[in-house]
Amino acid sequence: MSIFGGIEAGGSKFVCAIASGPQDIRDRIVFPTTTPEETIGRAINFLQHGEEKFGRLSAIGIASFGPLDPNPASGTFGYITSTPKSGWSHYNFVGAIRSAFNIPISFDTDVNGAALGEQQWGAATGLDTFLYMTIGTGIGGGAMVNGELLHGMLHPEMGHIRIPHDFEADPYPGNCPFHGDCLEGMASGPALEKRWRIFPKNIPPDHPAWDLEAHYLASGLVTLICTLSPQRVLLGGGVMEQTQLFPLIRNKVREFLNGYVQVSQILENIDSYILPPALGNQAGVLGSIALAYHVAQ
Amino acid sequence: MSIFGGIEAGGSKFVCAIASGPQDIRDRIVFPTTTPEETIGRAINFLQHGEEKFGRLSAIGIASFGPLDPNPASGTFGYITSTPKSGWSHYNFVGAIRSAFNIPISFDTDVNGAALGEQQWGAATGLDTFLYMTIGTGIGGGAMVNGELLHGMLHPEMGHIRIPHDFEADPYPGNCPFHGDCLEGMASGPALEKRWRIFPKNIPPDHPAWDLEAHYLASGLVTLICTLSPQRVLLGGGVMEQTQLFPLIRNKVREFLNGYVQVSQILENIDSYILPPALGNQAGVLGSIALAYHVAQ
Repeated sequence: MSIFGGIEAGGSKFVCAIASGPQDIRDRIVFPTTTPEETIGRAINFLQHGEEKFGRLSAIGIASFGPLDPNPASGTFGYITSTPKSGWSHYNFVGAIRSAFNIPISFDTDVNGAALGEQQWGAATGLDTFLYMTIGTGIGGGAMVNGELLHGMLHPEMGHIRIPHDFEADPYPGNCPFHGDCLEGMASGPALEKRWRIFPKNIPPDHPAWDLEAHYLASGLVTLICTLSPQRVLLGGGVMEQTQLFPLIRNKVREFLNGYVQVSQILENIDSYILPPALGNQAGVLGSIALAYHVAQ
Repeated sequence: MSIFGGIEAGGSKFVCAIASGPQDIRDRIVFPTTTPEETIGRAINFLQHGEEKFGRLSAIGIASFGPLDPNPASGTFGYITSTPKSGWSHYNFVGAIRSAFNIPISFDTDVNGAALGEQQWGAATGLDTFLYMTIGTGIGGGAMVNGELLHGMLHPEMGHIRIPHDFEADPYPGNCPFHGDCLEGMASGPALEKRWRIFPKNIPPDHPAWDLEAHYLASGLVTLICTLSPQRVLLGGGVMEQTQLFPLIRNKVREFLNGYVQVSQILENIDSYILPPALGNQAGVLGSIALAYHVAQ
């Protein structure tokens, strides 16, 4: 049986694992994201010890914060590109890992990794065109189209789509430093916290915050559904641990679409159309394992 | 040399052609869209005469108004689905053509057809992920992702994405019967006409209408760019014959993205990123020929 190394590289923490799949996670480590040298050093260390304990890895998958260059044909493949994150801008992530491991390395966005993991082992098995969104510190989206991950020119930045904003009903200006009231600016965890002045985990389930949150998320989802025509929509991330959001979002998606997209998935079965990821809070690191699995084939 | 039959099925008119490609259109006909029986009868008649004059067709491509079912694995493949257009709802378009021709038939949206034609012969050669939008009586989008047309659950309905709308600056409520002020509701030809009470072709190029039109179109494009990450964006349709819109749209797309998507295509070369289709007003019917070409391979 092949075993793989996975690195889920987040802006605040790294999760690394040695696994063949979700039922067989041999080892796992979590540590904070500091300088590239220190952080990548710890990741390499963990993976090298993994090889000593469990045998040679078949491939390594990296599911990373971005923006990044996931195009193997590009001269800057494997780099984090223009992040404001100190030290990481134009950092050659894949190059650093490759200096320690002479095996296939796959490199993609955290959300594309999570999408691939959900297709392989989770809530998107058998689908070829679907959407994975994470709503947490930021908002991001990964997508598979016709069985392949969507990259295009670079990779999607679905958190930054524009949505309607009624300033009279909600004067909060949004907290995206680039766009103000884009989807992320209005509906990320920090936006929730700043608007209501309560830490999101402490906002009671019946607080009006959740209805407004569902309103913005549904607004964005309607646009993404009209654009990608996904066969399913998976919503993960810290904010979506507030599971009362799911029925609110489903109702509003249906209300906003207003019968225009006449498919049973939306008109009759929306409860199985908009779902949490099946891999739960392992979706990220298993996404990196899924990336490794695919590059090894 | 293979020759193909093409049907561009629009809500108000049909354009049919016999061609091997854009340099070799052997015959072409335009007639109004009336009842399915009469309209499809004329299309079949034209194609049959084409076979008599030019020899056996290798395949037929249909690039149609929708919504429609383009999935060959579906029980209703080849049907127009839930259109309000009298007589056409749940009409078996491919079945009617197949009753007269025992050759491969390809069936897709008008905008997917146009996207395929532009990749084959036009402004998207060599690209694998790009967007084709038409802005006219309605607004629609077709997309290719990783070299294949995007269908997903059904097909995209990009005209119906939600966009910001400042009612104070522009009290026009939008004219989409389903969504009011979605992109199509705010920026289609009829929306322009109703807001300004001038037929769009008669609005002078320096009229403020065009700045507002560019504002809404750029708003929608920024969302589509953040979602699909297209390598190029082609804008066709009657409204885009107002070519003064192109520089306005390019500037606003760059302004709205505000440096967030750091790629040279947008930061440095946006003039060759957002373009008219190269096949011009033949993009539609050549799209249907391109669909035939691909199904014959």
